[in-house]
Amino acid sequence: MVRQLLTRSLCRTHPGRIKFALTSGTLRFVGILSAVGAAPGESIQVAQHGFTIGLVQRAAAAAPEANLHGTLAALERAADAGAQVLCTQELFRSRYFCQTEDTALFNLAETIPGPSTEALAALARSRQVVIVASLFERRAAGVYHNTAVILDADGSLAGTYRKMHIPDDPLYHEKFYFTPGDTGFTAFDTCHGKIGVLICWDQWFPEAARLTALQGAQVIFCPTAIGWHPAEKATWGAPQRDAWRTAQRAHAIANGVYVAAVNRVGHEQLAGDGIQFWGGSFVADPIGRVVAEAPTDKEEILTVPVDLDLLEEIRRNWPFLRDRRVDAYGGLDRRLLD
Amino acid sequence: MVRQLLTRSLCRTHPGRIKFALTSGTLRFVGILSAVGAAPGESIQVAQHGFTIGLVQRAAAAAPEANLHGTLAALERAADAGAQVLCTQELFRSRYFCQTEDTALFNLAETIPGPSTEALAALARSRQVVIVASLFERRAAGVYHNTAVILDADGSLAGTYRKMHIPDDPLYHEKFYFTPGDTGFTAFDTCHGKIGVLICWDQWFPEAARLTALQGAQVIFCPTAIGWHPAEKATWGAPQRDAWRTAQRAHAIANGVYVAAVNRVGHEQLAGDGIQFWGGSFVADPIGRVVAEAPTDKEEILTVPVDLDLLEEIRRNWPFLRDRRVDAYGGLDRRLLD
Repeated sequence: MVRQLLTRSLCRTHPGRIKFALTSGTLRFVGILSAVGAAPGESIQVAQHGFTIGLVQRAAAAAPEANLHGTLAALERAADAGAQVLCTQELFRSRYFCQTEDTALFNLAETIPGPSTEALAALARSRQVVIVASLFERRAAGVYHNTAVILDADGSLAGTYRKMHIPDDPLYHEKFYFTPGDTGFTAFDTCHGKIGVLICWDQWFPEAARLTALQGAQVIFCPTAIGWHPAEKATWGAPQRDAWRTAQRAHAIANGVYVAAVNRVGHEQLAGDGIQFWGGSFVADPIGRVVAEAPTDKEEILTVPVDLDLLEEIRRNWPFLRDRRVDAYGGLDRRLLD
Repeated sequence: MVRQLLTRSLCRTHPGRIKFALTSGTLRFVGILSAVGAAPGESIQVAQHGFTIGLVQRAAAAAPEANLHGTLAALERAADAGAQVLCTQELFRSRYFCQTEDTALFNLAETIPGPSTEALAALARSRQVVIVASLFERRAAGVYHNTAVILDADGSLAGTYRKMHIPDDPLYHEKFYFTPGDTGFTAFDTCHGKIGVLICWDQWFPEAARLTALQGAQVIFCPTAIGWHPAEKATWGAPQRDAWRTAQRAHAIANGVYVAAVNRVGHEQLAGDGIQFWGGSFVADPIGRVVAEAPTDKEEILTVPVDLDLLEEIRRNWPFLRDRRVDAYGGLDRRLLD
């Protein structure tokens, strides 16, 4: 609570990055000090150590403007409920257009910064919340990305992450639309916490989660658009969704971080039988427990506290990061070792 | 079935490695040909594509000889049930001695090859089965390892794997006993299938599973000794075991391989309150489904078919290995990226 008030106060009075060092149960200021009257290196005991995240799971309408306004309203409601770091589902402004390959659909893309970034930044600033938002980015003619913007609580752009792993499967023709990202895997130091972002297909790759965690991410957000092919749901539906859940829970366990997956919901038919998006947005704690989960068939807003003392405790008891064999991981940058 | 007969025939008549290439539903011989009368490159249709694995979960007695003989008998029973690739639990010859630090306990170690390797090789040869066995290896004075031997179906030593990640936690003082392995992560091409081994703490590291899978392992065996501290079981017992299960199921999913975990069972008290080993040996298929699982409180032998057509199908549908960003995984060989 004290931390939240201090952080918000600093964000408001000092636009841009606030520098402080976190240790369990204390805040130690190493940067801007005047705003709270702390001396360099001084530790201030805080009552609670962490922040609250908010996930917005929605069904997409046909009109991008409707999705933008609906998402902004849902983000407001998440902030009303106490969320300080909010995340949208993947490509929230539109239906999942990658079901077909159509050059006209590149018109859905926008620049970053651009209209959606501006609207989200205004909300971030007015509510003093961090927003992770998934957008279709037009970077240059013929170079489009599946990009997340990370807006800090003062409305500034804390960074962007461009989806690194691009899938291509029936009804998920992403290699047609999205140039592979060139941002690498990054953690972003925001007013409310240090966070990372992996976008959908990225969430299946342990390398991506590891590299994000090694940079200090406390939460890895995974904006997602995943669902069932209706024809195979009866046979493969349950194991597919469980595999999706398991892979991400395992990132939480292996790295001692929170993982927050945000998926869309609803049936969208732009080709074939369409895709039945399975919702089921969830948050896993650093030992992999699912501490909140949305339904598979309707919209939901999840708000979940991130407990940094628990993160510390779990990593002390299961210190995987202590014991990595960094001398023996050569070969991970090879396709196969055959 | 045809494959099994051919493989067994080749193992019997041609000690050492048998060379053949596997494609879905067919066996294509590229090496020793005379034994089956096949021409170079010829494809032979087979009725079933895979092999059967066997896991032996036991409670350890105080006397090493009793554990050796009991394990040999259990391996025989697994072979009777049709298993072709068998795996013991971690350090099956003794109770889990790492609960205390005592130089006298190095006397439990033996050379490789040595008496246990010889006894296991005789069984492998007589039953034409592959055996993965976890031993305490004396390599030199003061250099001891936690080592798995991989005995081929002709009794030859197909290879060794030395535990790479060494834990050290209350009642698990492994850094005192085990020199970190120097074998790296490896897949072994045996008469019955291509397999990898990770030992206990290794099983928490996605890098280890990935490197093993990139070398072509179809099954990753994880001999294990993990259990509950009695005092924390009520609070942490369920999430700990679920995390263990989830981390390994996730290796199966991320890599499209089978994972077979073999844990001991029973309460062993060599220090403090001792450890209640949670058994629960299991096999996960390449989409992470647990297809067989042993109880947490008694001995068990699991025999499970490995379906290489299913492995192929799952990898075709979720082609993670196709889409890895091998250009962007620099940094995995660093402790932290801070």
